Amino acid sequence: MTRKKESMDGNTAAAHISYAFTQVASIYPITPSSTMAELVDQWSAEGRKNIFNEVVEVKEMQSEAGAAGAVHGSLKAGALTSTYTASQGLLLMIPNMYKIAGELLPCVFHVSARAISTNALNIFGDHSDVMAVRQTGFAMLAENSVQEVMDLSAVAHLASLESSVPFVNFFDGFRTSHEIQKIDVLDYDELHPLVNKEKLHEFRQRALSPEKPTITGTNVNPDVFFQQRETVNANYLEVGKIVKKYMSKINELRGTNYDLVNYYGAPDAESIIVVIGSGAQTIEQTIDHLNKKGQKVGMVTIRLYRPFPVEDFLKAFPSTVKNIAVLDRTKEPGSQGEPLLLDVQSAFYGKANAPKIIGGRFGIGSKDFTPDQVEAVYEELAKSSPKQRFTLGIKEDVTNTNLELKPLLDLTNDKTVQCKFWGFGSDGTVGANKSAIKIIGNNTDKYVQGYFAYDSKKSGGLTVSHLRFGETPIRSTYLINSPNFVSVSLPSYVKKYDVIRGLKKGGTFLLNCIWSDEELENQLPGRLKKYIAENDIQFYTINALELAREVGLGGRTNTAMQTAFFKLSGIIDFDKAVQLLKDDAKKSYAKKSMAIVEKNWAAIDGTVDIIHKVNYPASWKDAKADKLETFEIPNTVGIDNKQYIEQILTPISQQDGDSLSVSDLIKNGMKDGTVPLGTSASEKRGVSAFVPEWLPDNCIGCNECSFVCPHAAIRPILVD
Amino acid sequence: MTRKKESMDGNTAAAHISYAFTQVASIYPITPSSTMAELVDQWSAEGRKNIFNEVVEVKEMQSEAGAAGAVHGSLKAGALTSTYTASQGLLLMIPNMYKIAGELLPCVFHVSARAISTNALNIFGDHSDVMAVRQTGFAMLAENSVQEVMDLSAVAHLASLESSVPFVNFFDGFRTSHEIQKIDVLDYDELHPLVNKEKLHEFRQRALSPEKPTITGTNVNPDVFFQQRETVNANYLEVGKIVKKYMSKINELRGTNYDLVNYYGAPDAESIIVVIGSGAQTIEQTIDHLNKKGQKVGMVTIRLYRPFPVEDFLKAFPSTVKNIAVLDRTKEPGSQGEPLLLDVQSAFYGKANAPKIIGGRFGIGSKDFTPDQVEAVYEELAKSSPKQRFTLGIKEDVTNTNLELKPLLDLTNDKTVQCKFWGFGSDGTVGANKSAIKIIGNNTDKYVQGYFAYDSKKSGGLTVSHLRFGETPIRSTYLINSPNFVSVSLPSYVKKYDVIRGLKKGGTFLLNCIWSDEELENQLPGRLKKYIAENDIQFYTINALELAREVGLGGRTNTAMQTAFFKLSGIIDFDKAVQLLKDDAKKSYAKKSMAIVEKNWAAIDGTVDIIHKVNYPASWKDAKADKLETFEIPNTVGIDNKQYIEQILTPISQQDGDSLSVSDLIKNGMKDGTVPLGTSASEKRGVSAFVPEWLPDNCIGCNECSFVCPHAAIRPILVD
Repeated sequence: MTRKKESMDGNTAAAHISYAFTQVASIYPITPSSTMAELVDQWSAEGRKNIFNEVVEVKEMQSEAGAAGAVHGSLKAGALTSTYTASQGLLLMIPNMYKIAGELLPCVFHVSARAISTNALNIFGDHSDVMAVRQTGFAMLAENSVQEVMDLSAVAHLASLESSVPFVNFFDGFRTSHEIQKIDVLDYDELHPLVNKEKLHEFRQRALSPEKPTITGTNVNPDVFFQQRETVNANYLEVGKIVKKYMSKINELRGTNYDLVNYYGAPDAESIIVVIGSGAQTIEQTIDHLNKKGQKVGMVTIRLYRPFPVEDFLKAFPSTVKNIAVLDRTKEPGSQGEPLLLDVQSAFYGKANAPKIIGGRFGIGSKDFTPDQVEAVYEELAKSSPKQRFTLGIKEDVTNTNLELKPLLDLTNDKTVQCKFWGFGSDGTVGANKSAIKIIGNNTDKYVQGYFAYDSKKSGGLTVSHLRFGETPIRSTYLINSPNFVSVSLPSYVKKYDVIRGLKKGGTFLLNCIWSDEELENQLPGRLKKYIAENDIQFYTINALELAREVGLGGRTNTAMQTAFFKLSGIIDFDKAVQLLKDDAKKSYAKKSMAIVEKNWAAIDGTVDIIHKVNYPASWKDAKADKLETFEIPNTVGIDNKQYIEQILTPISQQDGDSLSVSDLIKNGMKDGTVPLGTSASEKRGVSAFVPEWLPDNCIGCNECSFVCPHAAIRPILVD
Repeated sequence: MTRKKESMDGNTAAAHISYAFTQVASIYPITPSSTMAELVDQWSAEGRKNIFNEVVEVKEMQSEAGAAGAVHGSLKAGALTSTYTASQGLLLMIPNMYKIAGELLPCVFHVSARAISTNALNIFGDHSDVMAVRQTGFAMLAENSVQEVMDLSAVAHLASLESSVPFVNFFDGFRTSHEIQKIDVLDYDELHPLVNKEKLHEFRQRALSPEKPTITGTNVNPDVFFQQRETVNANYLEVGKIVKKYMSKINELRGTNYDLVNYYGAPDAESIIVVIGSGAQTIEQTIDHLNKKGQKVGMVTIRLYRPFPVEDFLKAFPSTVKNIAVLDRTKEPGSQGEPLLLDVQSAFYGKANAPKIIGGRFGIGSKDFTPDQVEAVYEELAKSSPKQRFTLGIKEDVTNTNLELKPLLDLTNDKTVQCKFWGFGSDGTVGANKSAIKIIGNNTDKYVQGYFAYDSKKSGGLTVSHLRFGETPIRSTYLINSPNFVSVSLPSYVKKYDVIRGLKKGGTFLLNCIWSDEELENQLPGRLKKYIAENDIQFYTINALELAREVGLGGRTNTAMQTAFFKLSGIIDFDKAVQLLKDDAKKSYAKKSMAIVEKNWAAIDGTVDIIHKVNYPASWKDAKADKLETFEIPNTVGIDNKQYIEQILTPISQQDGDSLSVSDLIKNGMKDGTVPLGTSASEKRGVSAFVPEWLPDNCIGCNECSFVCPHAAIRPILVD
């Protein structure tokens, strides 16, 4: 059978599967899980049917606490019920989770795992949230990629129904939830036969009903409560087997080899990493690289985290294993080790020839996890006295936990094309790139990956889109560091950011600007010119702003930039690409109005004429490599923020925050989450292409200009 | 210095210390923590001063989520803030706990640890709640007895301020929170000098203030968040040292030997139990018993659970240790082991000569934890193939986890007097016994212990008060099973319960009834008569009901029963006892009215004349040992609850629920918390001394009798 392939992100894959098995969805969307709830809501509104040929009933509650309570109630009423959440949202569900698990109610909570707010808020991915519910009695199933979300989310639903144990089905926030991949899609017709109808009937029979009234949730005294808690043991003992059974069924359908625990690497590996989540992809890639160089390393990834499958886990290791590093994507201050480490030590405790086990933290709050970090772990494992506890990918120079920080290693297949787009939050760059990667995925036989790094300023902040496409599956679950193509939507970025960093020799650089070649001489910083010339970069400019204004799209330059990308990359025959872009514009905007569609069509048609190849002079090689634009230090009365702006805000704003060490933050008083005020005054963002001008004749003195100016640049003055 | 001693429960001890160090208390009382919040509230209203000579400001919020939020806000404003909670209450605080810990805000959450609702609600004690917050970044300090609550709660406050790490200070719900013991009281004048004034100043300087505005709780991106999370490491590394320092200061004041981890037992023990909480007392007692018999066993109790003090923990063990059993008072379905077990295995992992480690659950939902269970653990440890995971004190006959169930073993000192009072919720028995134990504690040099087993029906349910007093400290943290004295406040109890079970040979049995000696012949069940005669029981009756009605106290027989106890026990010279009882009555009731005080005085004075010694005939020995009264099976239309009533409700109501096995519950469909309806119709409780009679002449047909009758015994009928 030819399976349908589609380019989608992890949230969409989870929503697709979840919708199939759900009768009632009780939701309260939270980043980065929102898309799941929103899609289910949308599909329900559109009348899409689940595998039981019913439209899902969606209820949005007033908080995640309410959503979880409604799940509980709906389950007790006999409806297959799901919800979607992350981070603090999941924390608010904890009390109901104990009840749902205690009452053996089958259901799935889909979680795009995210950091929890502590000394700062972070909307990005790690496992702090899911690890905070590991004691509730929910089973926990993890996926490492978008394809796995599609395949294994079904296992969560099917196994929950059969075991009567509720599931948390989780995958990494943003890295998996928002990463677009071209994946094989499971069809509802394939899924329907997998449902255990008998158990479904049993579940419905257990529902509260006036026909056969019962009480649940009674108050039990010390005489019986302990026994009642132990009544559920047999259910938990069965979960592993049941999950295994459904994984086999998926393996039959998909030709995969999913198991409760999977091994990857040399069959005689001595050093092995244990991990859960998207990091596994990068580790696999690094294992191939290292084993090719003659090392013998491997990885164990746990898919069923709860109930912890001790036997399968131990069996997964080759008998040659000597050293294990457990990587946890969470931090539990005060514990002697993060949760997965404790589980692994417990599993091996007292076993003959038990390996040495060390443990470390990585990828907290979506800290990028790269092959050089993996290599550092294997090097540490090879040492006679490795660090027992460590951190990866940061300079932790206070309690000195970090392993050696090695130069960035990119193991993406050489033939995979990597493209990086610098955009401005709300200018449409991310949306255009999502279309672009889907167009490529759905109209070529290439594998594709799209990842979108947002500033948490969102609208008005910096966005960097990372697109890869190539002949082989793409396992690089990290940002693009050595692109073949770089596009910049906002001219001011060339002064503020090192936009061209890592661009490959002979690569393509596309800059949206209003500058003529002569103006470029003055406007471009020396270091950029130098890099372009030294690396034989194909340099193009485009005045997309003028085109956008001409066709009536205002400041939305995204359509022209996207078209230019297709023209310059040549990934698809350009005529075909134009047609696909036009179809896509229609799909995107027709709901709003055909006028908008036509404006976009005009932009697509107009683009090819305004792409301008810059024939830069050889003298650019000698340009002076000047520094990035730095912040002005404002003279804010009574606030001393100079050091903070210089030492913290400047590197962060120059996209170099990764280089800040722990001691840098402590020196700047950030340990308890405190930062000084008055720093936005120093941020000359240069994000507008136009400068406002005050027209005295038009001014009626309403003062609203002062009210809307976020930086208090316009200040009203009382005149006698 | 002669230290003040006082009889109080654990909640009062915690409130006493907490009040000292608190400026703002943000509360939402929940069982069994309520007393703490209520006392702090009351003392505040009375104008009591903390060690800073201020009255604590108390705010009651609308839920525990709000209470935790208010703690966070108050701390950010620079006020030393505390709260008190348990169970679901603590769960609702989790999101704020991450923030409070993340921002390094010193404070103490006092928790009387309680079970969490799952397939049933249980208001009693275990560690499910505190273990559910072990990942939040709070330090966690545990106490094993009322005295320890007094001593170590101060350490929590002092160490939190010095380390800037917030603390959960916890002790066992009911067993410690509600157990009355005569303890040494720490004086506020002793505590004040211990405060680190410099750190207090520093904490206040960090407060939000318009004088020096800052921002906290900002949004941080993946570039910096991981580093920011690691800034707190040094604080956590210091906590152990700081706690140790303040424990030393308390040790100096009190002559104790508190440490982060304490060892008890043979210096060359091979088998060692690891435990947290009140169970440690019973284990100590059993260790003394076993080591006296020539065994070599020991116990390690962890006081500072987070940050887990690995080095101190390992050092606490004698080098002879070969086998360890870790006892967890929580259940985390799906984990390969409960949390303390995982911690212990991690601590020993890879160590030379690491001991064998097994782990079990005990005391869930206040399941009584007795010396025979401890003995079973040591026996298991001595086996060559012990059960790796086990349960204690229940018959778990489905997945067969339980260790051998041995006959009940009571290791209470022979000379300690043990008294058991069967009362009726709301009849004042518990209150009277609380006074009694305090009177004994405060007016003799005896050690005392009072524990009160409530039915969760509370008012109208069964209460059994367990009082012990003696020459040696009382470490029996379990119910009384072999009393010297039994008192029964309600005559119907002799038919329903085995009230006299375990009463010692020659012990005293006091029964409140209206029966003459002749009537006793007919009214008393055979088994009771037989037991009395065979065991030479001193049997007294008292018509306390008549006395109570005569003096105007209605059905409140508690004062007479309490007076009779003092008369019969002879623990205090009776004339002195009368005076103390009268003083106590005045203290208790003067607030309401002197008339009530005088009625109680009359009851006290009248009691001695109505105590009647029954000269039972020798023929009672030959009485037939009939069974306890069983339930009638009601004929409820459409509901089949016969089996449930026979197999579950009857043993529970006969106070024999402990004997129910896990399979008994499963057979009756209780796995998911479901129980049948219509069972109260079978419960002939016989709790009223009077039978209602309908007076047709007085009836106006308002039907309210039907409305208030909880058992629908009075039913309105529509007549044409």
